[in-house]
Amino acid sequence: MTDQSSIRVDGARLERSLATMATIGATPAGGVTRLACSDEDKTARDLFKQWLEQAGLEVRIDDFGTMTGLRAGATAGPPVVLASHLDTVVRGGRYDGALGVIAGLEVLRTLNDHGVRTRLPIAVVNWTNEEGVRFEPAMQASGAVAGRFTQADVYERCDRQGARFIDELRRIGYLGDQTNRPFPASSYLELHIEQGPVLDDLGQPVGIVGGIAGITWSEVVVSGQSDHAGPSPMRLRRDALAAAARIISGVEQIAWDCDEIAVATVGRIQAEPNVINTIPGKVTFSVDVRHPDPATLEAQFTRLQELARTVASNTGCDVDVRRFWTSEPTPFDRGVMMAIAESVEALGLPRVDLWSGAGHDAKYAAGMTPSGMIFVRSKGGLSHCETEFSTPVDIEAGANVLLGAALRLAGQV
Amino acid sequence: MTDQSSIRVDGARLERSLATMATIGATPAGGVTRLACSDEDKTARDLFKQWLEQAGLEVRIDDFGTMTGLRAGATAGPPVVLASHLDTVVRGGRYDGALGVIAGLEVLRTLNDHGVRTRLPIAVVNWTNEEGVRFEPAMQASGAVAGRFTQADVYERCDRQGARFIDELRRIGYLGDQTNRPFPASSYLELHIEQGPVLDDLGQPVGIVGGIAGITWSEVVVSGQSDHAGPSPMRLRRDALAAAARIISGVEQIAWDCDEIAVATVGRIQAEPNVINTIPGKVTFSVDVRHPDPATLEAQFTRLQELARTVASNTGCDVDVRRFWTSEPTPFDRGVMMAIAESVEALGLPRVDLWSGAGHDAKYAAGMTPSGMIFVRSKGGLSHCETEFSTPVDIEAGANVLLGAALRLAGQV
Repeated sequence: MTDQSSIRVDGARLERSLATMATIGATPAGGVTRLACSDEDKTARDLFKQWLEQAGLEVRIDDFGTMTGLRAGATAGPPVVLASHLDTVVRGGRYDGALGVIAGLEVLRTLNDHGVRTRLPIAVVNWTNEEGVRFEPAMQASGAVAGRFTQADVYERCDRQGARFIDELRRIGYLGDQTNRPFPASSYLELHIEQGPVLDDLGQPVGIVGGIAGITWSEVVVSGQSDHAGPSPMRLRRDALAAAARIISGVEQIAWDCDEIAVATVGRIQAEPNVINTIPGKVTFSVDVRHPDPATLEAQFTRLQELARTVASNTGCDVDVRRFWTSEPTPFDRGVMMAIAESVEALGLPRVDLWSGAGHDAKYAAGMTPSGMIFVRSKGGLSHCETEFSTPVDIEAGANVLLGAALRLAGQV
Repeated sequence: MTDQSSIRVDGARLERSLATMATIGATPAGGVTRLACSDEDKTARDLFKQWLEQAGLEVRIDDFGTMTGLRAGATAGPPVVLASHLDTVVRGGRYDGALGVIAGLEVLRTLNDHGVRTRLPIAVVNWTNEEGVRFEPAMQASGAVAGRFTQADVYERCDRQGARFIDELRRIGYLGDQTNRPFPASSYLELHIEQGPVLDDLGQPVGIVGGIAGITWSEVVVSGQSDHAGPSPMRLRRDALAAAARIISGVEQIAWDCDEIAVATVGRIQAEPNVINTIPGKVTFSVDVRHPDPATLEAQFTRLQELARTVASNTGCDVDVRRFWTSEPTPFDRGVMMAIAESVEALGLPRVDLWSGAGHDAKYAAGMTPSGMIFVRSKGGLSHCETEFSTPVDIEAGANVLLGAALRLAGQV
């Protein structure tokens, strides 16, 4: 029996595979455009399928185009799934998505190299349309497999040219069968670049993800009195933008006052009439608040409401806070996190725990099976751009963490 | 000799004339649209000319269409000018401009009624295109008479349909002669609605205007780092809108900290990319700062620069303040203000001193001759709208202040 604790992925092979995949849909500036169900997606899938077959894996395509490469275990139970996605945004990077899929493949290739037999099967999975750029919403296949969207709803989604998802999936040859869905699974692991600057700031290669933060979106409307900028003394004004500025500063403060994980963002703002010499009469802006803990998320929204009331009372403006969307926090499974943590420790890497502020297929997977994520440092925290970059050393470290966690979850024979 | 201190305008006649004038270009909602050199302007001018002739005044039309109705004095010196404008904005009110012209006429009618002979001549003047809505810029005729614009420049200005000012002025029959310009004058008085809420807030009918505030306009560009709203912790952000909000609050505070007259307004704002779940990377906004005192205006701009530096240093954003336009403050003549103040006192009215935050023809007149303005309370401070309203009592009070000031400046015989 192989000493499983000593085996490591082949970092050079992993880099070569990533580089080869990055040629498909490559942009002149070094990024990738590989939209879901596009010709580029087909080429990428064909290559991935060939790699799966070369690795001796059983290839399955489901009714949403989800590709699974299954490596049998000693028992016929549900597999440990190592998943991510090969689609990208427009002018995206080489790592977002592709890293997790190719690292999953590298884990299986490594197990083959060392003749490792696991108790449970292990599968590598490529989800369809994680980005949601061509067909909305994001995380379409994983959401549908998790029962969040119906098959009919996914099939009928159209891109901006009016092309239906089902037609495009069929066109590229990846409309498979419902029986080939990658779930049930015994557990789920997703390796992904961080898409944030925490690991880069800490100078650490990998992080253990505690879950996907909850998000609540509100629209705030401040109504004051539009007037000439000249003749209205300060004490007689009801300046909607001056009031909005106080709330925007307060929103920032709500996150600062909470803890290190809380974030709050005003991303969108519109003033009316938006003229240089007129006091704004109406300002509309968005507030995006995120936190892993549902109670804390609620408390932050309550503070936003209190802030709005205080500013309204102090400025004479009316302030309306309309909360229009909430995504509940998704904490990951403690057992899966423990397997990742043991793998990190066994590799002699420092342990860093952090939360994901962005959504991933793992969010939906977590509703179906014990799930977890591993983040790899991304330079400057950049993602969804052509300059997205993770070093080969960090990528190899992340893949070895994935390997160790997968072996722990799949079990030895 | 008539006891000049006891004579008063005919308030009912003044109201009737205002109401008659308001029928020309009347809008369904009770306002007026009477753009410069339009058919409505011609009709208004024809009526005004008829009133001037009926009052026995010498009518003069100058090369910019400025209409003067001259009442001779005992001496042939330059006249005391009582002026304003008959043009309006689109869907403007009945009082902005027309009040000053018709009150000036009412003053002369009253002098006729009482057979008053003044030492200097007194003239009522209707300036062309004060509003600058059809042909830019505003205060065109007074500016040209004051030498701020050349005749050729004014003539060649076109409206949005491409019609030239000179052609339109000729078309309506009011292209007169340069020798008929209303200046030189011995002094200049302009009665106008306040266009601000100060008098209404104080519950006072009239105010003595100290001058026209200086204005300085700046564009502020805050450059931070655009990023996903989720994965970036607060401490690693360079949120351009959060930084802008601090500056906007600070701009408000600069005016509050200065004095009761200072005003500062952020009227226009634009965030990029202006998306709900993205930290704004760039925010551009305008700052309009006004003050009667040039040194104070400069000090306020310096404080804006300091504020920008402080926020840049505290947030890590770059903040660029570009000052692109300044209109120097125009203080009015102390002698003219004294004549107005004596008139106010003689009428038993409370004295209220205030500054004009908006521009008026008196700004250019002040560069040519001792000048002053009288403000009449405007309900809610509203102007440039169809609901603009001043009560007959306030209007009569204002006209009597104008009468008293004109008599003091023109002198008794």
